[in-house]
Amino acid sequence: MTATLRDLGEFELIRAITARFALGQDVLVGPGDDAAVLSAPDARVVVTTDLLLEGRHFRRDWSSGVDVGHKAAAQNLADVAAMGARPTGLFVGFAAPGDLTVDWALALADGLAAECARAGATVAGGDISSADSIMLGVTALGDLEGRAPVLRSGARPGDVVVLAGSLGRAEAGLALLTAGLGHDADADADADADAGWTGLVTAHRRPRPPYPLGPALAAAGAHAMCDVSDGLVQDLGHIATASGVRIDLDLGGLTALAAAEPLPSAAAELGADPLDWVLTGGEDHALVACLPPAAAIPGGCERIGLVLPGTGVTLAGRPTAGRGGWNHFR
Amino acid sequence: MTATLRDLGEFELIRAITARFALGQDVLVGPGDDAAVLSAPDARVVVTTDLLLEGRHFRRDWSSGVDVGHKAAAQNLADVAAMGARPTGLFVGFAAPGDLTVDWALALADGLAAECARAGATVAGGDISSADSIMLGVTALGDLEGRAPVLRSGARPGDVVVLAGSLGRAEAGLALLTAGLGHDADADADADADAGWTGLVTAHRRPRPPYPLGPALAAAGAHAMCDVSDGLVQDLGHIATASGVRIDLDLGGLTALAAAEPLPSAAAELGADPLDWVLTGGEDHALVACLPPAAAIPGGCERIGLVLPGTGVTLAGRPTAGRGGWNHFR
Repeated sequence: MTATLRDLGEFELIRAITARFALGQDVLVGPGDDAAVLSAPDARVVVTTDLLLEGRHFRRDWSSGVDVGHKAAAQNLADVAAMGARPTGLFVGFAAPGDLTVDWALALADGLAAECARAGATVAGGDISSADSIMLGVTALGDLEGRAPVLRSGARPGDVVVLAGSLGRAEAGLALLTAGLGHDADADADADADAGWTGLVTAHRRPRPPYPLGPALAAAGAHAMCDVSDGLVQDLGHIATASGVRIDLDLGGLTALAAAEPLPSAAAELGADPLDWVLTGGEDHALVACLPPAAAIPGGCERIGLVLPGTGVTLAGRPTAGRGGWNHFR
Repeated sequence: MTATLRDLGEFELIRAITARFALGQDVLVGPGDDAAVLSAPDARVVVTTDLLLEGRHFRRDWSSGVDVGHKAAAQNLADVAAMGARPTGLFVGFAAPGDLTVDWALALADGLAAECARAGATVAGGDISSADSIMLGVTALGDLEGRAPVLRSGARPGDVVVLAGSLGRAEAGLALLTAGLGHDADADADADADAGWTGLVTAHRRPRPPYPLGPALAAAGAHAMCDVSDGLVQDLGHIATASGVRIDLDLGGLTALAAAEPLPSAAAELGADPLDWVLTGGEDHALVACLPPAAAIPGGCERIGLVLPGTGVTLAGRPTAGRGGWNHFR
């Protein structure tokens, strides 16, 4: 018989989970007290929090516990990197039904720990509760290392818009899963056997934000930055609004992204437009930044547009109306 | 017709909620970017996180939105104070059904803001999602102001155990609500008309942790401290275990707490033992600390026991077995 959370009880579960977390040098007091203590050498701390709910942000038949751990950590750690900060610590509230297997919960912990390791951070604390379905409340912290935080409001006409990371792949993977294709939750997520579609599904299950490029873009002088979680057009729209500028995207570069296999073959199979995935797909957690024209573009980033006077986001000068993004409650 | 979250949409809701939060001096970058930036003058930051779920941690027919906001903030800010830190910032993930009224959500924001103001902290960021029932993921941060964090593991034989705040009142209020007594969710929670029982119900709805006494007890030299969220015996048991000591509670002092009206009259009505509420009731979020015998006990704290060699928690030398506390999944 497979042990469940109810079999194990809250305190044993906490012990088993926290045993999976190797505490990094930034953790001065780890799990087990009223609160944790993290180092904050900059004397300022970057903080972001997100909820992930089963059935809305992930499905257990589409994602393993390890996948959900990676994703929950990634989407928060990417927000820290998008401020130009080095991720330091992750805090995870975890609620689950008593009949959830202990194995699933430990796999979740492993995914959280592995994604934190990718970012140089540590799971430093959390909370456990019972619930009818799985929910996660994840908070990530980071250190600015002496730099100014890179806000959404600093873009200036003449800035070059650069992309770090991938676009549209997570959305394509979600579309494949929704259509009943590429669904193989037991597969090793690092495998890439299925003509590349598996890679798209993996991009949905385990986004891979380019964490070190957040601080690198800040150090390069980025005037504005954000992570792409709701779709490129929508998220750049936030920068355009906050900065009082227009952002014009290069058609060529984005078309090239949309033309890179396996996006076109997956789109053909589903009757979708791969450029739509690139422009409006969220959850790859790429970073987009506006750099002064004279700045050296860090390796691993590519130019995708230009900041102009005006308002809104355009694609080769034309409106992107209708290419919106996600809005809860609608 | 009363407007719902679905009527308003995510982005308008965020605007309406964040407008309720006056940003304090510790908030360097507030809501609206990828992440917030808080000051951390000590170069260490205290962090704690909790989940609150409708139906498990609160009920909408027993608690108003303002009540839930107060409680969600209080239980996290108390954990910060229990480390000896000054609370600085609160981050709130909020998930709710689309048919929840905007009024309820704004009342929640008001309660969060008001409780933060009691603690000297600010709501500095958050996340909003849709869900089938209301859930909150709350994270609180604090600054140690140059002091060492007060852990659970530092108690030494000879230390005096002191209490700051109330015990058993929240549990009595919950028992009254469960029994269908004192149930008047529309009442002004500050009213105290019903022979004092309303005060017990209010203690359940809006615990009032003694925040400034956390740093005060740390400054007084506390060897160990925690907040009472799972019940006095269980939470002191954590200190006893972590410190490798026995904690012996004074019968007289705790009996006096249990004899203070309205606890005895409420207990008589319900056929309960008020001493049980004092010993095992959680959620008042009192602070308990172990002070060296020569330390001056800060005003507002009272002596309730002594640290001895040995293990476990005793009451006037006798076992407290059976007086356990809360365990999720059991």
